Amino acid sequence: MELYTTKSDVLVNPRSEYRVTRRYHGKVKAVVFDWAGTVIDCGVFSPAGAFMELFKEEGVEVTSEEARGPMGMHKRAHICKMLEMERVRGAWLEKKGAPPTDGDINRMYAKFVPKNIAALQTHSKLIDGTVECMAELRRMGIKVGSCTGYPSAIVEKLKPLAAAQGYVPDVYVAADEVPQARPMPYMVWLNAIRLDVNPIEAVVKVDDTVDGIKEGITAGSWTIGVARTGNYVAATEEQLATMPRQDLEWRLNRAYDLLHDAGSHYVVDSVKDVPAVVRDINRRLTLGERP
Amino acid sequence: MELYTTKSDVLVNPRSEYRVTRRYHGKVKAVVFDWAGTVIDCGVFSPAGAFMELFKEEGVEVTSEEARGPMGMHKRAHICKMLEMERVRGAWLEKKGAPPTDGDINRMYAKFVPKNIAALQTHSKLIDGTVECMAELRRMGIKVGSCTGYPSAIVEKLKPLAAAQGYVPDVYVAADEVPQARPMPYMVWLNAIRLDVNPIEAVVKVDDTVDGIKEGITAGSWTIGVARTGNYVAATEEQLATMPRQDLEWRLNRAYDLLHDAGSHYVVDSVKDVPAVVRDINRRLTLGERP
Amino acid sequence: MELYTTKSDVLVNPRSEYRVTRRYHGKVKAVVFDWAGTVIDCGVFSPAGAFMELFKEEGVEVTSEEARGPMGMHKRAHICKMLEMERVRGAWLEKKGAPPTDGDINRMYAKFVPKNIAALQTHSKLIDGTVECMAELRRMGIKVGSCTGYPSAIVEKLKPLAAAQGYVPDVYVAADEVPQARPMPYMVWLNAIRLDVNPIEAVVKVDDTVDGIKEGITAGSWTIGVARTGNYVAATEEQLATMPRQDLEWRLNRAYDLLHDAGSHYVVDSVKDVPAVVRDINRRLTLGERP
Amino acid sequence: MELYTTKSDVLVNPRSEYRVTRRYHGKVKAVVFDWAGTVIDCGVFSPAGAFMELFKEEGVEVTSEEARGPMGMHKRAHICKMLEMERVRGAWLEKKGAPPTDGDINRMYAKFVPKNIAALQTHSKLIDGTVECMAELRRMGIKVGSCTGYPSAIVEKLKPLAAAQGYVPDVYVAADEVPQARPMPYMVWLNAIRLDVNPIEAVVKVDDTVDGIKEGITAGSWTIGVARTGNYVAATEEQLATMPRQDLEWRLNRAYDLLHDAGSHYVVDSVKDVPAVVRDINRRLTLGERP
Amino acid sequence: MELYTTKSDVLVNPRSEYRVTRRYHGKVKAVVFDWAGTVIDCGVFSPAGAFMELFKEEGVEVTSEEARGPMGMHKRAHICKMLEMERVRGAWLEKKGAPPTDGDINRMYAKFVPKNIAALQTHSKLIDGTVECMAELRRMGIKVGSCTGYPSAIVEKLKPLAAAQGYVPDVYVAADEVPQARPMPYMVWLNAIRLDVNPIEAVVKVDDTVDGIKEGITAGSWTIGVARTGNYVAATEEQLATMPRQDLEWRLNRAYDLLHDAGSHYVVDSVKDVPAVVRDINRRLTLGERP
Amino acid sequence: MELYTTKSDVLVNPRSEYRVTRRYHGKVKAVVFDWAGTVIDCGVFSPAGAFMELFKEEGVEVTSEEARGPMGMHKRAHICKMLEMERVRGAWLEKKGAPPTDGDINRMYAKFVPKNIAALQTHSKLIDGTVECMAELRRMGIKVGSCTGYPSAIVEKLKPLAAAQGYVPDVYVAADEVPQARPMPYMVWLNAIRLDVNPIEAVVKVDDTVDGIKEGITAGSWTIGVARTGNYVAATEEQLATMPRQDLEWRLNRAYDLLHDAGSHYVVDSVKDVPAVVRDINRRLTLGERP
Repeated sequence: MELYTTKSDVLVNPRSEYRVTRRYHGKVKAVVFDWAGTVIDCGVFSPAGAFMELFKEEGVEVTSEEARGPMGMHKRAHICKMLEMERVRGAWLEKKGAPPTDGDINRMYAKFVPKNIAALQTHSKLIDGTVECMAELRRMGIKVGSCTGYPSAIVEKLKPLAAAQGYVPDVYVAADEVPQARPMPYMVWLNAIRLDVNPIEAVVKVDDTVDGIKEGITAGSWTIGVARTGNYVAATEEQLATMPRQDLEWRLNRAYDLLHDAGSHYVVDSVKDVPAVVRDINRRLTLGERP
Repeated sequence: MELYTTKSDVLVNPRSEYRVTRRYHGKVKAVVFDWAGTVIDCGVFSPAGAFMELFKEEGVEVTSEEARGPMGMHKRAHICKMLEMERVRGAWLEKKGAPPTDGDINRMYAKFVPKNIAALQTHSKLIDGTVECMAELRRMGIKVGSCTGYPSAIVEKLKPLAAAQGYVPDVYVAADEVPQARPMPYMVWLNAIRLDVNPIEAVVKVDDTVDGIKEGITAGSWTIGVARTGNYVAATEEQLATMPRQDLEWRLNRAYDLLHDAGSHYVVDSVKDVPAVVRDINRRLTLGERP
Repeated sequence: MELYTTKSDVLVNPRSEYRVTRRYHGKVKAVVFDWAGTVIDCGVFSPAGAFMELFKEEGVEVTSEEARGPMGMHKRAHICKMLEMERVRGAWLEKKGAPPTDGDINRMYAKFVPKNIAALQTHSKLIDGTVECMAELRRMGIKVGSCTGYPSAIVEKLKPLAAAQGYVPDVYVAADEVPQARPMPYMVWLNAIRLDVNPIEAVVKVDDTVDGIKEGITAGSWTIGVARTGNYVAATEEQLATMPRQDLEWRLNRAYDLLHDAGSHYVVDSVKDVPAVVRDINRRLTLGERP
Repeated sequence: MELYTTKSDVLVNPRSEYRVTRRYHGKVKAVVFDWAGTVIDCGVFSPAGAFMELFKEEGVEVTSEEARGPMGMHKRAHICKMLEMERVRGAWLEKKGAPPTDGDINRMYAKFVPKNIAALQTHSKLIDGTVECMAELRRMGIKVGSCTGYPSAIVEKLKPLAAAQGYVPDVYVAADEVPQARPMPYMVWLNAIRLDVNPIEAVVKVDDTVDGIKEGITAGSWTIGVARTGNYVAATEEQLATMPRQDLEWRLNRAYDLLHDAGSHYVVDSVKDVPAVVRDINRRLTLGERP
Repeated sequence: MELYTTKSDVLVNPRSEYRVTRRYHGKVKAVVFDWAGTVIDCGVFSPAGAFMELFKEEGVEVTSEEARGPMGMHKRAHICKMLEMERVRGAWLEKKGAPPTDGDINRMYAKFVPKNIAALQTHSKLIDGTVECMAELRRMGIKVGSCTGYPSAIVEKLKPLAAAQGYVPDVYVAADEVPQARPMPYMVWLNAIRLDVNPIEAVVKVDDTVDGIKEGITAGSWTIGVARTGNYVAATEEQLATMPRQDLEWRLNRAYDLLHDAGSHYVVDSVKDVPAVVRDINRRLTLGERP
Repeated sequence: MELYTTKSDVLVNPRSEYRVTRRYHGKVKAVVFDWAGTVIDCGVFSPAGAFMELFKEEGVEVTSEEARGPMGMHKRAHICKMLEMERVRGAWLEKKGAPPTDGDINRMYAKFVPKNIAALQTHSKLIDGTVECMAELRRMGIKVGSCTGYPSAIVEKLKPLAAAQGYVPDVYVAADEVPQARPMPYMVWLNAIRLDVNPIEAVVKVDDTVDGIKEGITAGSWTIGVARTGNYVAATEEQLATMPRQDLEWRLNRAYDLLHDAGSHYVVDSVKDVPAVVRDINRRLTLGERP
């Protein structure tokens, strides 16, 4: 018995003349924050420094820009990405006489984690406004999630450091809890599951890197890029305060452009601006817009 | 330093005149199938029978229609839902003299699971066409996921019964692995994570119940309702073959309507029709449509 | 008890986060045809001639173009529209010494109807292809409606003349059966009611005049303009066959432009082309397009 | 002479490179109200009671829920629908030994009308706020239409009862004036014709039942469901005022869900809320939205 | 090596699953104004008079309406268009015994230009509000362009007359600087190039004629029709002030309808209303709308 | 007299209830091609080599990647962009002791032009398929335009070299003919004006660089990126034929990604693929899509 027929290349169901669609018109229910450069470690110095030190010990010095390029990814994938850069690969071949092996990468990753953990001691200050932002979101009835390119080992060290300063998200997801971390969307979905929040249009992802924004877009959530405190401006809060205005403007423009071109729905200066953007997303959701 | 200004109630970023959007134009990468009524147990007799027996033992007889109403939900939630039905609640009060307590529900759920497992012995035949459907999907490079209202204890019994008949999905998710099962979308997202598949527009959910369709819609995936072999037609393959045509038509129309009104993107007779629909979804994805 | 609240200028219902929409994806169910210039009286000579004669008898000669300008409207409204034309009004004033009164209009309309009925004797040939078009539509399961700027008195004379040549629509609506005729949509809705056909997206209106197209658009139906046999080319089938090609092209381009600019979804040469267009509308309906 | 050619499966007109569309950006011009449960007879007791009495006299008792299920339809179709319900059909067969015939249905319908008319004596109080709502709509320049599942015989009795309390719509349409009543859209179109109002996007339908909402959607108009005073909450104004809050909430949620799932553009508590919604529809129309 | 494959009639690129789109969300950057009827010569008397005089000298008198019909076009094309009008062509043939030749047209155009220049002496008053409008636009950071159906020879005369009254646009484009003038879009694009302004969504065209509006629409810019001071109302500011209200209303309605039906995004009374409309366009651009 | 009123923040015109829109449904009328890397000089060696030589003579050696980064821009702007690169700026400062002045840039640009012209001698072979592509486009009735980052002086040399091999576009635009060259859209608009082609949706821009694609997008035209023969693969046709497959794949993927992320509507291997894409754009235009 054939109930389905193909007419002019479209499947036509003879039993119903109407198609029914259900679209979310509710509000934002959760915001998922990245860690370094978004809520902590303004300028993302702990991993950047650890990568530079790691490569130096291998006899292959890298620049800050090279170390920061793939920021946002799982830290092991980050090492692989750096080794694929033309200049770095050239320098490695010259130094070692052979391309990097899986063994090399494993060894480097094993060395990286403790280096990064050590760097947290000097680079774990909450970014200005984080505590107030979370308080305001919670007043709006919104849950707070978190994810990161860090593996669980590093996240476990970060938690108490952040908590001591007043930042305790409702849920933690680390890069090694999913088959692939950023730019894949799995950590955002795992946040939504653990937060018991849906649909994905009710979730906002906040991040300072291109891969963190793509993670949110691919998940189907709204995305907010933070430019001023993140990896592309690459400055501590003290440096931001004292840097020549023209230099800061140049760096800000570059960071805004990178985050916009990645598809961010919004780009703002810092975590402070998030509640205002969430209110605008609420307005758009009410009108039936999707991310 | 204020980089963001609010103009006519919309947040305007002075740094970029263009908004960039990224939209998926690829193909279907995974199909997630429900179990009973979709790929196995045509007519969904094992849980329906178990619920009827369970309530009879409590001294509160229920009809098949009452037992099947909330089908698709986590089985514990299903029991609660039945106890909220006006007629059932009335009969319970008359019999017991008091409304059901958490203790009652726990006891009933504890009794339900072994009953359902026992019923699998006579109701675990794969639905006709399941093996061929999966083979064709895999030839198209598509992964196969699964989820269900059953808890892990029942899924563990189902797996070998299905495997023996040739059906082995790539991933299993049970109702007790997420904070809330259907109509919440978490089991679909957990399938996507375990299958390592994204974005959610590349995923299709196939189900025979309203709550299973809502699970897929809320997840953001495409949905296909299966009417003929499912819970609303409520007939074994033998019964389908011998039922008076008018009776079958009446049941099919009702099932098609229920699944359409739940928002199914497509409703078909059975798992056999899924590959053709997936090809149509591929066409729509290529044109930039979203579910 | 207040369940509704106004948030950011949009009414928000706290009880449901989802909005459900139902959209027609079925097929064309009825086509409603105009009479003169569309299925009968190629070039629309019977009313045009009657208007010219009528005004001549008043001592105010009008050109063919002036007589044809408001074609499509209720014939009484047509007389009013002509009397509002600057040149005609000027000539009337010169002749009569006073602007036209309601009495004048009533008298003229009373004289018009028998003139038009008389003219039907020589101008009631079915347009080539009409019978075949209707047969094909009915093979497609489509009902045939009709409406016109003629009052019932004229329609009653037309019916047997058309029937004798093989054209019998399922339903007749005349201009005096509704509060206002074209460009108001009421005759299309009345057709749909009498044909027992819905929704309005399943209805197609075919007409040779701007006001007849606007009638269909305002009704919410699809519209097809017919250019070659209609009021703007203003030629009998014999004249069409013998007219210099350049002259015909000039008239056709003008008719196509007028009908396109009125918002016609399609413009074709004649009733012969209608079934092919209906098939294209079916394709678009299946894809979820609305007129 | 062939002016139309088919290119890549789309009809292409060589004469015009531009397609012109006309879209309504005006305001709401008419609101069409259902009678029982919307403006009169809070809780819809007169037909519900008449149906129960009618079936009782046949020796087939029905529950209030069974009597209310098809509410909104033409009352004769309502009787048919009830006789198709599995439980009712079973009871009928048991009692009568044969399925209901056309003769049975005619007899029952003949008995139903006077029963309902009799019930109007005790159930014809205007719902609170009706008069004020109409006054405000008319201040906004909006016309008021009406339609119902009642046949003309009942409407004629309702008119003076409502008028005596201050409610006089501009137009009346009864279920027996159209080929099929709800969920078909014909009574809404007939309202628009009699009210001399167009396009259909300028019309709003207000109703308390699923079939009344579908009538409005299929017509192409905006729809507002009224939950609190309608058929699904099924309570008089006195009962609403004294019912336990939890019970009222449960009934309201169910009514809101039913009306939302039918595709209502808005669901509100009662006729009181209609003017505020009309203002919101005006805003959306101005922005070019269609229902 | 074939990287492109054709699948289900759409070109599919296997290298990227996502399509990226960039859409303008910035503001209006330039407004391009027509001359006569928009910012100068209220009622467009200088060319209308010149055309009437020109044809009278040829022995073929034309009415004001005939002279104004093609207004907006290049003046040479305007002469051709008038000679194609049925009545004018008939009168020409009667007078001259032969259709107009290229030689006739060249001679007439050569005579037209000085006539129009002469007419500027009495018809070059700036329209009320022009200077204030430009000042406000410039305060908003918006550049001012201009174009016209006049050839350069006339524009050169207009410039100092307008400048003396305080109107100096940033850029001038004349009809003979492009291959075809209105309704072709080239003068708008040439304005944007000379003003160094893009994208075209950031440009607004203001005009009082149908061809001037089509020029803007075809260019891809926003369009504002000005009705009261333009060619279709055809009255000086003094006449506007003293005309009977009913006559003015009739002319305004006709002008509004003509400009709306040409596709104007907005129609306003005069140049005074432009800044308010530009603010509304800014709002729509911010929301991502395109003209 | 105020005809315009502001209601709920939208300008509402009381004179018309309908908004009319005109949308292009015609076909592609012109394709505008970039020169180097698109139709000539496969791999873009003449400017790349000239830039490297130029900087070497200044004592500041640059890599091929640095020389190719800003390719597509006006060549003077290209020199500025290279001098702003962090590494190049550092090397310049080290060598010269001071940042580059306008005098430096003028001197370098004056030296660049003859170097590039000289390089044309060895790098002016037409890319395979160019002649056939143009012939096919012209058979489709499509005009051929051209633009480039080269100034007129270089274009004048290119013309005869290309013509001798059979490539003669209908129109030439050079980078110094507009206020700003790429990524500004002016050269595309100037092509359309000179080709007498509109609207801009009927124009396709073909280019091998990100700035050339942005030029087309900002113009409002369709864009096709060519990856294999262009600046980012950076290989001659001989090198493409002999390069290791894995190396070619890596370069192709990078080129495809860069061109896709810039917003290209299509990315193809080479000019050979353009006619097939134009046919697909025709299909989309017919369906009413805009670029």
